[in-house]
Amino acid sequence: MTARKILFIILDGVSDRPCPELGGTTPLVAAYTPVLDKLAAEGICGIMDTIAAGVRPGSDTAHLALLGYDPYKYYTGRGPLECEGSGIHMEPGMIGFRCNYATISKERLVTDRRAGRIHDTAALSEAIQEGVDLSKFGVDFVFRSGAGHRAALALRGPGLGHCVSSNDPKKEGVAPLTVKSLKQAPEHEKTAMVCNEFVRQSTKILFDHPLNQQRVKAGLNPANVVLMRGAGEMGNFEPFAAKYGLPGSVISAASLITGIGRAVGLTPVPVPGITGSQDSNLAGKVSAAIKELEAKDFVLVNIKGADESGHDGLAEQKRNFIEKADAALEPLLGLTDCIIIVCADHSTPCTIKDHSADPVPVIIRGDGVRMDDVVRFNEYACARGGLGRITGAALLPTALDLINKAHKFGA
Amino acid sequence: MTARKILFIILDGVSDRPCPELGGTTPLVAAYTPVLDKLAAEGICGIMDTIAAGVRPGSDTAHLALLGYDPYKYYTGRGPLECEGSGIHMEPGMIGFRCNYATISKERLVTDRRAGRIHDTAALSEAIQEGVDLSKFGVDFVFRSGAGHRAALALRGPGLGHCVSSNDPKKEGVAPLTVKSLKQAPEHEKTAMVCNEFVRQSTKILFDHPLNQQRVKAGLNPANVVLMRGAGEMGNFEPFAAKYGLPGSVISAASLITGIGRAVGLTPVPVPGITGSQDSNLAGKVSAAIKELEAKDFVLVNIKGADESGHDGLAEQKRNFIEKADAALEPLLGLTDCIIIVCADHSTPCTIKDHSADPVPVIIRGDGVRMDDVVRFNEYACARGGLGRITGAALLPTALDLINKAHKFGA
Repeated sequence: MTARKILFIILDGVSDRPCPELGGTTPLVAAYTPVLDKLAAEGICGIMDTIAAGVRPGSDTAHLALLGYDPYKYYTGRGPLECEGSGIHMEPGMIGFRCNYATISKERLVTDRRAGRIHDTAALSEAIQEGVDLSKFGVDFVFRSGAGHRAALALRGPGLGHCVSSNDPKKEGVAPLTVKSLKQAPEHEKTAMVCNEFVRQSTKILFDHPLNQQRVKAGLNPANVVLMRGAGEMGNFEPFAAKYGLPGSVISAASLITGIGRAVGLTPVPVPGITGSQDSNLAGKVSAAIKELEAKDFVLVNIKGADESGHDGLAEQKRNFIEKADAALEPLLGLTDCIIIVCADHSTPCTIKDHSADPVPVIIRGDGVRMDDVVRFNEYACARGGLGRITGAALLPTALDLINKAHKFGA
Repeated sequence: MTARKILFIILDGVSDRPCPELGGTTPLVAAYTPVLDKLAAEGICGIMDTIAAGVRPGSDTAHLALLGYDPYKYYTGRGPLECEGSGIHMEPGMIGFRCNYATISKERLVTDRRAGRIHDTAALSEAIQEGVDLSKFGVDFVFRSGAGHRAALALRGPGLGHCVSSNDPKKEGVAPLTVKSLKQAPEHEKTAMVCNEFVRQSTKILFDHPLNQQRVKAGLNPANVVLMRGAGEMGNFEPFAAKYGLPGSVISAASLITGIGRAVGLTPVPVPGITGSQDSNLAGKVSAAIKELEAKDFVLVNIKGADESGHDGLAEQKRNFIEKADAALEPLLGLTDCIIIVCADHSTPCTIKDHSADPVPVIIRGDGVRMDDVVRFNEYACARGGLGRITGAALLPTALDLINKAHKFGA
């Protein structure tokens, strides 16, 4: 029997380096993971360089690579993917930015880069959308609130480039920077001008906004300036369903991952209670994925908590989260008509609190795989698996081949 | 703790194929190597195709690949790298040649391709530098003696190409060849003309030179002609320190390797008594490397003797040299604040007396590596290591990632 569908589980940043707090081993090795181990035992395992050996991936470039979109071709910056994740429909050529609300003083110095971690900024974003006018540049825009103090900005118009700097000074006590073109070319210079005008007009609107006046009265930092970064041009993504013949969905709490999914045409599936953190509703994600597989042929699930622990340098927390995720994945053991992929997008070693280029472990489990003798899902055991050491670009094609959706090259 | 420096030990040509004299195993397997084995046990191991699987590397192309300079882009011939190794400062676009002094008869037939293995040719090279005039081509040159009968020639001027043949007939009893353009294009044709003029003028100077007259009287073969080969154009190498953020040094007895180091901006470190042969001062190299690491972030050490034994087809000599090198590396075991890489640049099987494409064993040892269970440094044990099978281009990025100097691609 040949499976017909693919369930792609990405345990974000789950792999690691030896951690002193865990006696010199990794959180994956230290964790009790009967479900992942059973999947490993029933599947074929390996290690994987998501982009290439020695390349430290971001989550964005890694996910693009795993979905078969060469990040060296498609990735210009995180902005447009964050915009998609915030629900802004990005067309090829639009310029996207990650933004956040911040606080500046009357002297125009940044005093709080997160505006007192303000939560509900919808009214502010609506006022900006209503009030800012960029038509003198022939440009229109979409500005939308994200989670917490976050937001996203998309510019659309002729002659815009994406090579511009940020206005975020990255520290407090100084004025926001002027956005500058990073290349001598009219399209980037135009974007820089548009950005500076956007900041000028939006700051004026935010200073006068009743919500901010209330916050000041209540002793809270007002959200009176927009800081923007991660400029990128939306690529022309061939839709996933057309590229592979698989209608698909994405399940993720992280707007960046949802945005990548939307950018390639995957349908985001909302799940209540998912947070991208330790307390996320993992069982909800898994049951939503299984349900989604009834209608779709491909479901990508991103589980973020281990990456968060890695960034925070908390090896024991990471181990504990892995055990929680493992338990939540238990229903997968009953799935028989699909190929299940389990891997990380990159390693996030607790010792360095950031992503590394260390290869990640990977399992492919389902009908047709050549089961090896690996019975543990971790960095060491999988290195001895039957897949050997592969790249991220090879993973999805391997799974497509197992469901008979790979293109035959030649006769 | 994260290491901050990289010590890169290249055991030139150390890996091999099964050797009948060693009961069908390799010199590395046959050798007693407690130090290399300890490094393997403390590190992560693998096998490596320096350039690509099935590609037989030269030492030059292999070292370029290991330093992260794609030899398909940067390598046009050995000449310019030998020039650098001889202390000639090569600028991008200059054409370099390996040369040797030879003996021709009055009938202009080559009678000794090494001019009686003449040793001190400095006076001859100075006479050539003084006397030869290529200004009618708009070309100037640097000609410098190397070790023994060797020398190097660099041409500088407009409109010079590197695709020219050698004048070395490769056998005795025949006349030196005319240098010819290997491509129909004016720049290569010009270089061929310049070379032939250089040979014509230099031969005249050498015939009349007092040193040669003395040699003839003493019954020695005079050094009265220059044979030239390995034409190549000096590439535009991005300096190593700028590319990786690591000021570095190179320690090697082989002028070719020193030349590659100089070409990419590594500082050559002289060590007394190093010969590139069986009798080299290996302890001096190792202590110089450790001392150099106090000031620099990257040190490349090339140890050549095993390659020599391979070229000579002497498996037992190769095994013995490996044991000598192993003992000399003992001080490395105490280094804790750097990543140590040990590998070969290529295999030099005694059975074929030349380089082969067989992958080489590699160790990466230092903080952060995922130690595997390999406890021997040889072709077989390392093939089961945690690195799997990597390319030379991936090795330095992997080490850079371990010292937190890898660029993050994406967010």
